[in-house]
Amino acid sequence: MRILLVGAGGVGSAAVAIAARRTFFETMVVADYDLGRASRAIAEHDGRFVAAHVDAASADAVAALCREHRITHVLNAVDPRFVMPIFDGAFAAGADYLDMAMSLSHPHPTRPHAETGVKLGDEQFARSEQWSAAGRLALCGIGIEPGLSDVFARYAADELFSEIDEIGVRDGANLTVDGYDFAPSFSIWTTIEECLNPPVIWEADRGWYTTPPFSEPEVFDFPAGIGPVECVNVEHEEVLLVPRWVKAKRVTFKYGLGDEFIEVLKTLHKLGLDSTRPVSVRGAQVSPRDVVAACLPDPATLGDRMRGKTCAGTYVTGAGVDGRPRKVYLYHVVDNGWSMKEYGHQAVVWQTAVNPVVALELLATGAWSGAGVLGPEALPPVPFLDLLTGYGSPWGMEER
Amino acid sequence: MRILLVGAGGVGSAAVAIAARRTFFETMVVADYDLGRASRAIAEHDGRFVAAHVDAASADAVAALCREHRITHVLNAVDPRFVMPIFDGAFAAGADYLDMAMSLSHPHPTRPHAETGVKLGDEQFARSEQWSAAGRLALCGIGIEPGLSDVFARYAADELFSEIDEIGVRDGANLTVDGYDFAPSFSIWTTIEECLNPPVIWEADRGWYTTPPFSEPEVFDFPAGIGPVECVNVEHEEVLLVPRWVKAKRVTFKYGLGDEFIEVLKTLHKLGLDSTRPVSVRGAQVSPRDVVAACLPDPATLGDRMRGKTCAGTYVTGAGVDGRPRKVYLYHVVDNGWSMKEYGHQAVVWQTAVNPVVALELLATGAWSGAGVLGPEALPPVPFLDLLTGYGSPWGMEER
Repeated sequence: MRILLVGAGGVGSAAVAIAARRTFFETMVVADYDLGRASRAIAEHDGRFVAAHVDAASADAVAALCREHRITHVLNAVDPRFVMPIFDGAFAAGADYLDMAMSLSHPHPTRPHAETGVKLGDEQFARSEQWSAAGRLALCGIGIEPGLSDVFARYAADELFSEIDEIGVRDGANLTVDGYDFAPSFSIWTTIEECLNPPVIWEADRGWYTTPPFSEPEVFDFPAGIGPVECVNVEHEEVLLVPRWVKAKRVTFKYGLGDEFIEVLKTLHKLGLDSTRPVSVRGAQVSPRDVVAACLPDPATLGDRMRGKTCAGTYVTGAGVDGRPRKVYLYHVVDNGWSMKEYGHQAVVWQTAVNPVVALELLATGAWSGAGVLGPEALPPVPFLDLLTGYGSPWGMEER
Repeated sequence: MRILLVGAGGVGSAAVAIAARRTFFETMVVADYDLGRASRAIAEHDGRFVAAHVDAASADAVAALCREHRITHVLNAVDPRFVMPIFDGAFAAGADYLDMAMSLSHPHPTRPHAETGVKLGDEQFARSEQWSAAGRLALCGIGIEPGLSDVFARYAADELFSEIDEIGVRDGANLTVDGYDFAPSFSIWTTIEECLNPPVIWEADRGWYTTPPFSEPEVFDFPAGIGPVECVNVEHEEVLLVPRWVKAKRVTFKYGLGDEFIEVLKTLHKLGLDSTRPVSVRGAQVSPRDVVAACLPDPATLGDRMRGKTCAGTYVTGAGVDGRPRKVYLYHVVDNGWSMKEYGHQAVVWQTAVNPVVALELLATGAWSGAGVLGPEALPPVPFLDLLTGYGSPWGMEER
């Protein structure tokens, strides 16, 4: 297996550190728009790693780099506006493809808070037949959420339930960052994109529909000492992926943003500072959202100042295999102190990065295989969960 | 009188429209960094008005323009970061000077929320002897607030009170802007500067001191149907000016920002978006505060969509001339519908702009005169209040 990793930011760098301990691949080319950043990501690792420059906005550049290094698998670890050129570039070069976020949505032109427009991943699913016909695999949404959360959904359907009422992904943390009034632990660009788009919900008798942002607030009690966190509906890939392969009456995603973060996001939106459309400022054209990101500390650099744990998981309700009512939360917790000590990467990016590396190893060994555009729930969940535990990062399950 | 008006933004353009109806001056050169904006400001007015380009950051450029047009009085109507070059340029060219905001403050390096550092106007007052010796007048803070509010303070001391406990400037409005979630009715750059700097308070037995932003919230009941508005301490020139000429035990400034505006300002600060220090965004260097301003509509263009009234005034408590307790609110209200119909300028900028034009007319007629760096309360208040009424914009007084 010859891997091209596109993006040496927080998640990409953590993926390098995780992969460096595994033997399943021959080479990993780590490419970034900033070659220095790619070089720093591989600096302490063995000779299988190579740094390269790439413009992720160019499918041709991605394809050329694939051909140059005879790449078999492309792992996309940049923000989701670059999904399509990387996806297309991998296909053009005959490589398989993995990402952790899918092609972007566009709200319904007249009823954005009631109906879906272009959905997350629609552009990718539109090419699924092409990928199938070519015998190539695009494994989409294989980070932590989407990713492990989708594996949990499939595991619940296969092993724990006879009928599912709701699959509700629930994400929460108790992370704090010393010395900052406000310091998101994940890309603010992506967080704004997720949280300010109309959240999407799936119901068996209604299909996909949307609501206004921050709808259906709910206090969810997270395990491992994190405790209760207010969660709200957020647009997320799981809601688009899970119903394609797992039978359930309802699929939702709620993010434990907390009151303060929600207030910040609402204010950014009210002032137009979430916009990606450039504004003119003393002769320069800049995207307000890029300026917001530039004002905040880079979350990948905050690990030493962070404290606490982050939890991702899937809450499933319905009838158990014995037909009796069952409620189960399947989850994965990373303690920032552990991930910093073990890998030198903060909890949120480490937790995201471990999953595509596990998936690549399953593809390398043949435990996972397929063709077309697939979500993680399209593939058998047990090998994934077992190998994740083998990576030293076990998952948990709570009956509720 | 030959006037150079620097700045053809909202306030400058309104000052042109107001001055155009008066006969006390010979010429008014309207200068802006954007010559087109200056030309638009004078387009519908008589031959006394001339448009010019000027870089307000250059004292030499301001002085050269003064000499070219034999200017006797410079009126500064740009944002306060340009106070010092315009002030110096006017002095170099032998002109008198008026402004509506004073040189900027810098917080105390170690105790910003307890002690003053460099105060508003300190840089200008440091040159007062130079101006006095040259027989030149710098009349500072002669907009609405500071400006008319200072005139009210002096009027209260001269005519209404034998002893003053507190002079509290109180500003509030019920303006709304149709079609916008959030649209400040005044320069957001200046509003951020005022509201996020530590507010300053003056007490006779303590001198000037500061507090954290948004301190001492108080609901003040405004006249003319505006009603109760939550007001908080804000850094403002009146607190620095009034105690130099008017005897009082305490001087404060509170701004009726309202909860929503306070929340927006706190969020901008938390994210560093209030900062004027440039950040690097994809190769461009931009000031986050400029980006915030660029994302919001230009308040000068909102007049047609605005509704409501704005009130500025001075609340004075103490002992009346008869020695008995007295509480008086001296105020000035502008209805946006009136200012748009009469002048084509929205209420907040019109209310600011009328005062320096009245002051210029008093200087032209000799009713006001002086030398050195003076605040409005250094000069006799009655001629000012009478002429303001003569401009069709009467003031009011409420016993409380």
